[in-house]
Amino acid sequence: MTTIDIQLSATRKEKPKEDQLAFGRNFTDHMFIMDYSTEKGWYDPRIVPYAPISLDPSTMVFHYGQTVFEGLKAYRTKDDQILLFRPEKNMERMNLSNERICIPHIDGEIVIEGLKKLIQVDRDWVPTAEGTSLYIRPFVIPTEPFLGVAPATQYRFMIIMSPVGSYYKEGIQPVRIFVENEYVRAVAGGTGTAKTGGNYAASLKAQEEATKRGYTQVLWLDGVEKKYVEEVGSMNVFFKIKGEVVTPQLNGSILEGITRNSILQLLRHWDIPVSERRISMDEIREAYDKGELEEAFGTGTAAVISPIGEFLYEEKQILINEGKTGELSKKLYDTLTGIQNGTLKDEFGWTVTVENEKVLSK
Amino acid sequence: MTTIDIQLSATRKEKPKEDQLAFGRNFTDHMFIMDYSTEKGWYDPRIVPYAPISLDPSTMVFHYGQTVFEGLKAYRTKDDQILLFRPEKNMERMNLSNERICIPHIDGEIVIEGLKKLIQVDRDWVPTAEGTSLYIRPFVIPTEPFLGVAPATQYRFMIIMSPVGSYYKEGIQPVRIFVENEYVRAVAGGTGTAKTGGNYAASLKAQEEATKRGYTQVLWLDGVEKKYVEEVGSMNVFFKIKGEVVTPQLNGSILEGITRNSILQLLRHWDIPVSERRISMDEIREAYDKGELEEAFGTGTAAVISPIGEFLYEEKQILINEGKTGELSKKLYDTLTGIQNGTLKDEFGWTVTVENEKVLSK
Ligand SMILES: Cc1ncc(COP(=O)(O)O)c(C=O)c1O
Ligand SMILES: Cc1ncc(COP(=O)(O)O)c(C=O)c1O
Repeated sequence: MTTIDIQLSATRKEKPKEDQLAFGRNFTDHMFIMDYSTEKGWYDPRIVPYAPISLDPSTMVFHYGQTVFEGLKAYRTKDDQILLFRPEKNMERMNLSNERICIPHIDGEIVIEGLKKLIQVDRDWVPTAEGTSLYIRPFVIPTEPFLGVAPATQYRFMIIMSPVGSYYKEGIQPVRIFVENEYVRAVAGGTGTAKTGGNYAASLKAQEEATKRGYTQVLWLDGVEKKYVEEVGSMNVFFKIKGEVVTPQLNGSILEGITRNSILQLLRHWDIPVSERRISMDEIREAYDKGELEEAFGTGTAAVISPIGEFLYEEKQILINEGKTGELSKKLYDTLTGIQNGTLKDEFGWTVTVENEKVLSK
Repeated sequence: MTTIDIQLSATRKEKPKEDQLAFGRNFTDHMFIMDYSTEKGWYDPRIVPYAPISLDPSTMVFHYGQTVFEGLKAYRTKDDQILLFRPEKNMERMNLSNERICIPHIDGEIVIEGLKKLIQVDRDWVPTAEGTSLYIRPFVIPTEPFLGVAPATQYRFMIIMSPVGSYYKEGIQPVRIFVENEYVRAVAGGTGTAKTGGNYAASLKAQEEATKRGYTQVLWLDGVEKKYVEEVGSMNVFFKIKGEVVTPQLNGSILEGITRNSILQLLRHWDIPVSERRISMDEIREAYDKGELEEAFGTGTAAVISPIGEFLYEEKQILINEGKTGELSKKLYDTLTGIQNGTLKDEFGWTVTVENEKVLSK
């Protein structure tokens, strides 16, 4: 077994107040690092004080976008345990992204071991207030100084962590979504299934324009016919039509969300009819016209469930459940967050406990 | 007029030997930097010693791919002048890329002024041997430490420079190209027209597979029907069919190469029939079968003209001009490189002279 070196910080930062936590602005006292070279493979896994990194301006990460990242959360339970939600799924997806973007495979077990140690070291940073959590960001960047378009021969894998507030400070609120039919996020054969920087850079322009028009997020359509539903910003999307729950199938251009996967399992467990298939905006509009579109919601690590109150498609409004949170959306939200924060029984074996161990430098 | 601060390096690096110049591995003694914040706009343009930059691990450049870059060259003429080739076109394209990727507009004039000063400072780095040049890499990265998918509010623009050897050390050589019909580089509505990192990350996998099969580069097809020619690796592509030169039109998914633009002007100037239009691989195969496919070549800053000797399309070989460099390809290469290095008269006003001035710290 690889040993993880640990170097504890001599000083500790002041923690932000739990009712003032902003997303992704404050980081804990330590970080996990592991380096890669062609000769050594992944080497030197270590926990060190959180600090800037120094890179030559020619470093490939500044030029050719060969990056991959993940996002997951740690939750503090009422009896002061720390739970992770399906971290092995994030490792699996990270390696799918790596594969697409030509980054060498990373041993998920070492990373999860390192992550657990990192959380043990920074345990006090996991917030306690309801709805709060510790957001965990594993990521890989190429560190080779070289201006050539080719897979790098040196990489750095890191994990940084940030305490985040409740997504729904004033209770769960449906969002308004703009259906995008000019810009395209991804197409089969492209990088849409990978969690890589370029997909997010590509999304900014459409998001900016939707925001200007008063919409929270963009719903992407397929890049070929611009008819079929793909996903929403950083979420997968579900529709409840005449009692059946429909979500776009994994088609080679959307990201497979871990929340999506969990929601599908929950629905099937409850014997609610579910279908993963191609679904067009025309079909959704038709269902709406017939009064058969009952609910719609996005799923993702940040919001867990984000009920959708309205779509704007081709300048026409599609109002869902009178703009209010649907019953199923609410039930899914309560169940999933309950499992995540330990108030509901975890029948699926999704949560992983981080033991409460004191960690010393070594 | 903005003044550019100049801080000269106390030491100078040893220069690599001119017959051993590798692409993108050695950098000059100085670099140009300019920063951006929402409050100040672009500020503090300066020339400083070439040195690593230090960034917080949460800096957006490591996560969301909001980067843009450019590539151009400076050439040393026989009578020791330094020439730039159409630098204002690179600035124009950089701002088109910026626009797509939500990076604030950059004043091209300040950048060109800064670039000229930078070259004056590092003038000795422009190599003298035939076919060599100084490769110039302007680029923009988001420098805000924030884990949110949104346009950054802080950026850094930089120019670094690298002396590069002749692309064709053993004379101009046709390349073998693999026509890719699984992976997709870009689609209209995506980011294909922008010089942004994600496009290059997306290309690595296909390039890797083509290399394994013995092909130098990949020819991309459109992402919708996978029938129409887009471009090659880091080059635009041209075909000579029955005396007419055909190149894919600017269709919203290919990059507008500055070499492409110059080649089109040259061809029109020479009264050679030229057409910018959609062209399918079927049409190319048909022309080949009829013996009408006379030449094919890629165009880009690195190679200028790269004759294509062979395509592999759907496992069938398309051999061009018996795998030898075509007459027109050679003439275009000689003319363009002649203008660039000052041995031919520049009738188009493409070259810009960098005055030979001594620059002091200020
Ligand atoms: C593009 C995209 N789709 C979907 C998701 C949802 O994935 P998950 O449920 O794993 O958070 C995310 C967020 O990670 C995302 O970035
Ligand atoms: C994708 C792509 N296409 C085409 C080109 C050719 O452009 P230029 O002639 O400006 O070098 C490049 C290189 O810059 C490129 O990266």
